[in-house]
Amino acid sequence: MNAPHILVLNGPNLSRLGKREPGIYGHRTLTDINAALEAAFPDVSFEFFQSEDEGEIIERLYDSEDRRSCAGVVLNAGALTHYSIALRDAISAVTLPVVEVHLSNIYAREEFRSKSVISAVCRGVVSGFGEASYHLGVQALLSLAEEGPKQ
Amino acid sequence: MNAPHILVLNGPNLSRLGKREPGIYGHRTLTDINAALEAAFPDVSFEFFQSEDEGEIIERLYDSEDRRSCAGVVLNAGALTHYSIALRDAISAVTLPVVEVHLSNIYAREEFRSKSVISAVCRGVVSGFGEASYHLGVQALLSLAEEGPKQ
Amino acid sequence: MNAPHILVLNGPNLSRLGKREPGIYGHRTLTDINAALEAAFPDVSFEFFQSEDEGEIIERLYDSEDRRSCAGVVLNAGALTHYSIALRDAISAVTLPVVEVHLSNIYAREEFRSKSVISAVCRGVVSGFGEASYHLGVQALLSLAEEGPKQ
Amino acid sequence: MNAPHILVLNGPNLSRLGKREPGIYGHRTLTDINAALEAAFPDVSFEFFQSEDEGEIIERLYDSEDRRSCAGVVLNAGALTHYSIALRDAISAVTLPVVEVHLSNIYAREEFRSKSVISAVCRGVVSGFGEASYHLGVQALLSLAEEGPKQ
Amino acid sequence: MNAPHILVLNGPNLSRLGKREPGIYGHRTLTDINAALEAAFPDVSFEFFQSEDEGEIIERLYDSEDRRSCAGVVLNAGALTHYSIALRDAISAVTLPVVEVHLSNIYAREEFRSKSVISAVCRGVVSGFGEASYHLGVQALLSLAEEGPKQ
Amino acid sequence: MNAPHILVLNGPNLSRLGKREPGIYGHRTLTDINAALEAAFPDVSFEFFQSEDEGEIIERLYDSEDRRSCAGVVLNAGALTHYSIALRDAISAVTLPVVEVHLSNIYAREEFRSKSVISAVCRGVVSGFGEASYHLGVQALLSLAEEGPKQ
Amino acid sequence: MNAPHILVLNGPNLSRLGKREPGIYGHRTLTDINAALEAAFPDVSFEFFQSEDEGEIIERLYDSEDRRSCAGVVLNAGALTHYSIALRDAISAVTLPVVEVHLSNIYAREEFRSKSVISAVCRGVVSGFGEASYHLGVQALLSLAEEGPKQ
Amino acid sequence: MNAPHILVLNGPNLSRLGKREPGIYGHRTLTDINAALEAAFPDVSFEFFQSEDEGEIIERLYDSEDRRSCAGVVLNAGALTHYSIALRDAISAVTLPVVEVHLSNIYAREEFRSKSVISAVCRGVVSGFGEASYHLGVQALLSLAEEGPKQ
Amino acid sequence: MNAPHILVLNGPNLSRLGKREPGIYGHRTLTDINAALEAAFPDVSFEFFQSEDEGEIIERLYDSEDRRSCAGVVLNAGALTHYSIALRDAISAVTLPVVEVHLSNIYAREEFRSKSVISAVCRGVVSGFGEASYHLGVQALLSLAEEGPKQ
Amino acid sequence: MNAPHILVLNGPNLSRLGKREPGIYGHRTLTDINAALEAAFPDVSFEFFQSEDEGEIIERLYDSEDRRSCAGVVLNAGALTHYSIALRDAISAVTLPVVEVHLSNIYAREEFRSKSVISAVCRGVVSGFGEASYHLGVQALLSLAEEGPKQ
Amino acid sequence: MNAPHILVLNGPNLSRLGKREPGIYGHRTLTDINAALEAAFPDVSFEFFQSEDEGEIIERLYDSEDRRSCAGVVLNAGALTHYSIALRDAISAVTLPVVEVHLSNIYAREEFRSKSVISAVCRGVVSGFGEASYHLGVQALLSLAEEGPKQ
Amino acid sequence: MNAPHILVLNGPNLSRLGKREPGIYGHRTLTDINAALEAAFPDVSFEFFQSEDEGEIIERLYDSEDRRSCAGVVLNAGALTHYSIALRDAISAVTLPVVEVHLSNIYAREEFRSKSVISAVCRGVVSGFGEASYHLGVQALLSLAEEGPKQ
Repeated sequence: MNAPHILVLNGPNLSRLGKREPGIYGHRTLTDINAALEAAFPDVSFEFFQSEDEGEIIERLYDSEDRRSCAGVVLNAGALTHYSIALRDAISAVTLPVVEVHLSNIYAREEFRSKSVISAVCRGVVSGFGEASYHLGVQALLSLAEEGPKQ
Repeated sequence: MNAPHILVLNGPNLSRLGKREPGIYGHRTLTDINAALEAAFPDVSFEFFQSEDEGEIIERLYDSEDRRSCAGVVLNAGALTHYSIALRDAISAVTLPVVEVHLSNIYAREEFRSKSVISAVCRGVVSGFGEASYHLGVQALLSLAEEGPKQ
Repeated sequence: MNAPHILVLNGPNLSRLGKREPGIYGHRTLTDINAALEAAFPDVSFEFFQSEDEGEIIERLYDSEDRRSCAGVVLNAGALTHYSIALRDAISAVTLPVVEVHLSNIYAREEFRSKSVISAVCRGVVSGFGEASYHLGVQALLSLAEEGPKQ
Repeated sequence: MNAPHILVLNGPNLSRLGKREPGIYGHRTLTDINAALEAAFPDVSFEFFQSEDEGEIIERLYDSEDRRSCAGVVLNAGALTHYSIALRDAISAVTLPVVEVHLSNIYAREEFRSKSVISAVCRGVVSGFGEASYHLGVQALLSLAEEGPKQ
Repeated sequence: MNAPHILVLNGPNLSRLGKREPGIYGHRTLTDINAALEAAFPDVSFEFFQSEDEGEIIERLYDSEDRRSCAGVVLNAGALTHYSIALRDAISAVTLPVVEVHLSNIYAREEFRSKSVISAVCRGVVSGFGEASYHLGVQALLSLAEEGPKQ
Repeated sequence: MNAPHILVLNGPNLSRLGKREPGIYGHRTLTDINAALEAAFPDVSFEFFQSEDEGEIIERLYDSEDRRSCAGVVLNAGALTHYSIALRDAISAVTLPVVEVHLSNIYAREEFRSKSVISAVCRGVVSGFGEASYHLGVQALLSLAEEGPKQ
Repeated sequence: MNAPHILVLNGPNLSRLGKREPGIYGHRTLTDINAALEAAFPDVSFEFFQSEDEGEIIERLYDSEDRRSCAGVVLNAGALTHYSIALRDAISAVTLPVVEVHLSNIYAREEFRSKSVISAVCRGVVSGFGEASYHLGVQALLSLAEEGPKQ
Repeated sequence: MNAPHILVLNGPNLSRLGKREPGIYGHRTLTDINAALEAAFPDVSFEFFQSEDEGEIIERLYDSEDRRSCAGVVLNAGALTHYSIALRDAISAVTLPVVEVHLSNIYAREEFRSKSVISAVCRGVVSGFGEASYHLGVQALLSLAEEGPKQ
Repeated sequence: MNAPHILVLNGPNLSRLGKREPGIYGHRTLTDINAALEAAFPDVSFEFFQSEDEGEIIERLYDSEDRRSCAGVVLNAGALTHYSIALRDAISAVTLPVVEVHLSNIYAREEFRSKSVISAVCRGVVSGFGEASYHLGVQALLSLAEEGPKQ
Repeated sequence: MNAPHILVLNGPNLSRLGKREPGIYGHRTLTDINAALEAAFPDVSFEFFQSEDEGEIIERLYDSEDRRSCAGVVLNAGALTHYSIALRDAISAVTLPVVEVHLSNIYAREEFRSKSVISAVCRGVVSGFGEASYHLGVQALLSLAEEGPKQ
Repeated sequence: MNAPHILVLNGPNLSRLGKREPGIYGHRTLTDINAALEAAFPDVSFEFFQSEDEGEIIERLYDSEDRRSCAGVVLNAGALTHYSIALRDAISAVTLPVVEVHLSNIYAREEFRSKSVISAVCRGVVSGFGEASYHLGVQALLSLAEEGPKQ
Repeated sequence: MNAPHILVLNGPNLSRLGKREPGIYGHRTLTDINAALEAAFPDVSFEFFQSEDEGEIIERLYDSEDRRSCAGVVLNAGALTHYSIALRDAISAVTLPVVEVHLSNIYAREEFRSKSVISAVCRGVVSGFGEASYHLGVQALLSLAEEGPKQ
């Protein structure tokens, strides 16, 4: 796959990275993280999108699917992870591989955060490595791409 | 009731009908389904709305209520069915009769889909007949209309 | 399908319609409801059966299956809806399409009524439209018949 | 109320009293118990019925209701107590007062026996006094009769 | 047993009978109820005690046990029914037979009222017959007395 | 024990063996299975009974107990396995040893099938060996008979 | 309402304020809090009561009800909040409006503290504002008084 | 604090106040309520925002945080109270004190309404006093302001 | 620590030791047990208190705390162990070390006895050694005293 | 199948048979049981293995699979039955048919014993016939062998 | 009992004492603890065993039982406490008294640690006194020995 | 960090990779996977260990910790993931960073596999990318190493 195109999709509150609870989420902003991703994967063409709105995130997922140029999605769904069955259904509905990532280890926090309603329909999960979770997510997508299409 | 006006309201992901998981949802698009409804009920004046966004669906419900010309709503809430208490409250807040419909039999799928948070405030439920669910929903509204207003 | 034959099967306590809790179930008797069905669908040949007894209901289902002339079943299982796994197994065992109907909206009443053990093996569910639920159930069977056999 | 008529209705397995687990249920047969009731309440006209069959018990309840001569029902539903929602619905459907009785203290046995699905629709419950539970049940019906009709 | 002595023990809030929620508990005061019991059972010597305090109720139970003249206890534990394991232990600790009574049908009210933590250690339960529940409770104690001591 | 007599008792829906869901239950009918049992155990005198009706099954169990010639029961209770506390009580009430058998492995199917309400009162359970489950059930009864009476 | 009379009722352990876990409950004693209330609402006539004893708290509630001069109750039930159904019943039994207050935010502490068994029968709840919770509770009572009696 | 600025934030369906279920929510509109707040607190500078949309509410919260002129938020999250973990995270992410208010007593309604997913991250809760809940919420914010910043 | 002073605090029903269910609790009275403690620890100055009343037990705990001469508490809370959050809060509120003891092994009895609401705030637990549990509790307090104050 | 080879695999604590709780498990040792198996099935070549160690049991299962001479496994997993998902995975991983056996009726004992985590991946279950359970297990394997390979 | 022999048995991870989480478990190694036990009880002959392996711990328990010289076992099962039903069965199978001890107060930590699957079959429990828990455990065994054998 | 040393630790049943359920786990053996890891990270010095035995896995973890040359652990705990609290405690006890990896997406399989008891004490989780999960796990460890030690 030459110059794969990857959508990095961030859900509610991730706009506040660097400002919100740095003890849990670190001091880097989403802009910093995105820039670092582009630096780390010069051969990947990235598209970045963040919204506080469930509906907009679903729409963006469908847009990427329809434009057909996208190789996959790295998704940090934020709190939608824990209750948005609508997002789950959208992930099921697309043929794009979606990799679920989390900055913090969601299994080591409040009980309600250890349940993700989207994991079962994502290709895989990377959780707990801070900013590196995004990098590992991209890496994961690239290795999935080598294996060929989702059955 | 002469030429009743009915709102057909579709929630998240139903824009993908015909593309998404045809094994479960069939090959017809939402446009096809809407056209067939108009053909089947020539004496009904239909209004169609779909959105990926919980807020927009609630607003549309209120708009129909306020215009007062609407006889009732056929609602396929998609995944919102399973968690949107906001939508539930909106259904309670309107005097319009709302009929809940589903393409698939939601009680025969994943456990979490067998729970609808809106059923208790809808007038009734039609689930599992594919595209015919919408037709039966319209029929149900028309028969409710014959009985007179919601007590 | 010419002059389809449909079994309308009613479970325990539905013999009391018109006498039992009219606030919930209305004032019409089962005989009234059956007569109205025959009037509404002159092209359908109906067979009506009611029993307080789980065993007899299962037997009747098998009889209809075996006589092979039946196009489908409209089933109001009454309280058996909520615990009769034997009835569930019988529905699974027949190839006849079975449509589950309820007069009241079972999801809007006591918690234990919102769980149906048969929904998962019926073709679909119609609940909450009073007597019209039976009419919609017949309609649903007829539209299933147009689609061809159960896969 | 002169010479009130009371139905004593016994469910599955109560035919075995005196034979079945005498450590829990005592050595007296159902015939003994019925005879003692007639002796103790010479002014009451009793009718006794027992069946292993849920359907027959429901039918008998409706028969008593329809004959209109019955002042009330003393019901030992046996194991149906714990799961027969059909019996519960039948009790709701009749205007006859129904008093639930049990020989043993059902709250002091296996966990699953401490839940009765019919208590909520009976007028009251008497449990744990052996044969005397039936006598207290009759007494309870007579005192309800003095108070006037069920509201 | 000549002139048996019976303790009628009432728990928290029963002092308010006749004032508190007459829709549920009726218009008669505890004094009225006690007087009617004495009138109905002229051969029984009654002792009446009511307290808002769990500790005082337990102490009274032990006093009756120790004076050894008491034939049994009719206990309406009020809300303590639902959580006082201390009262349960006290009932277990005495050899006196204790009969649990309730004015209302506790199984037909809020879910939390359908669970009694004391039923399992009482001899039996009478629930739902209003003031008659006390009379039936006394009758039950007298019939237990005829059977001989608790095994 | 010479020529022991064994009752093979089958519950609801087992009349449909060979027709119902052969993927789960195989192609042999109940008649085939019974004939093979007689062939395999020429020294055993068999009695076969099947019913869709809980009440009839309980009655047959009591009949066998009362005729006293029966050495034990091989019981495939079908769906009653999962909810019939009445059947459970009947099994407790007889002194006959009862062996619970199932054609399919009930623990490997839907969650609700993994719970049997009768296992705790049967002598043992054989599940999952198809037609051979009946043969193993007979064998189990014969080996129990060698051990002497149930304590 | 001229010079309304308000009962400020404090349950178990609130006598220890200022000594007990100041990290959660602050350094001010109950005497300090009461004095500040009197200073803040010079037009209100206050009555203060605290007890470690469930029975005494219930009795005080009834006393206030009976003296009829009381306009309402500000109740910090302490730990009784979480299990005293007896207190709940007492609140139901009085016609006085009762406002539930808590110093700490009970929903932000141990799971078992997030459940109040009395909230459902209080007029409203104020939780989490430290000493100000009492002031807001009084304010709430005064605004309820303006609205007229509890329906 | 001179002329504090306070954001009054209302979630889904609160636009319908005065129209929706007046038995529960009263007859006053949100505009009425807002006007009354301004009248009652002439020294406070208010900002009012309502939306049916979860994403817009979160965004407004961040806007207020960023403009830094805001002293705190009175939040009636409507149905989002019960499931929006995204809103919960946003409240955690801001340093602004947020007070949760409800018109009705959410603990006295349907079971699912007694659970708030945001209470644990708000400074406190005021529930059940109708329109006065907003006034008490403002009062609470003002008293928090006197105490100094959130630790 | 010279001549340490220890409070031995016993809750409801422990006054009945030696009389109540000796199969579980043994034949020795509380007086016997206290005397044996004094004999076994001649260098400890003991104070003994028992009450059936939750409020009195809490008050005694505070008295000991306030007199400041007490080195610690050996507490057998009886049935309060399982539900008295008020007692739990009192234990949290004192700086005295409290050791929870039980005569019987509470984890080997009824399910509801295996949960203690006070264990989490006691220093430790000793359960199941009969009278020796008190001795071990005293020993435990003495060894805690050697370690220095509670952090 | 000539001279089939069968592995009889016993888990933790089964080494103690004949010593441990003979009321439940009988007086025969594992050596006795194994010898009786060999005597009863002279045409079968048996291999016996017991270990207290989960890891060793899994290894032995794989060894048998790899040597390919084994026709099937009779497995009494002892307490591992109830929690060893590792053993479950090993049973899934081998193509050998595995029959789960238990000496006692595990469904008639403590609640936690009625759940087997391995049943769902075994071919079938035999429980409750004492030593005969092993014999029936071997018989079951032999009848499975006649049917041909696991699908 | 002269020179009693006691086995001190430690489960997984207790080899790491003094290294692992000293905030919870203290700074002393298992060797230190064992030495202190020997010093404190010069008249007891101790045997010490620790393993990370469930199987080895069960075997050691059986070895001690078989050598018959052992008076009892002080068992700190570590994490096996919470899930090893195999260890539970081994404790049941031996006639040796086993005392369960824990360094930390297991009821004051994570929820899953408050459940011990072995407590119900141990003679008693000592939890929360650090190294002193072992000393109290030995003392408990010695006092059990004085009482005579386990019934 | 020059030539970091990493332990790749595999739990029960992973020895069967390539043989066991290739539909879920793929066709490559553990040896293949290990070789590929060494090829992909030539600058890392790897150590590989697999065992069916919980105890051995814990011991190996401690060995690596003690040798102090190890930079971190990539752990695929297999089925121990779901119940081994002993392994959880061992992970807590070491200062080495541990990354949890899974070949399959454990959240998309049986319900019981979606719960990991070790995730809360691992640094992070990678699940669902087949063999690539190990590579991502190594990558994750390397990026953690760049961040500095675990706090």
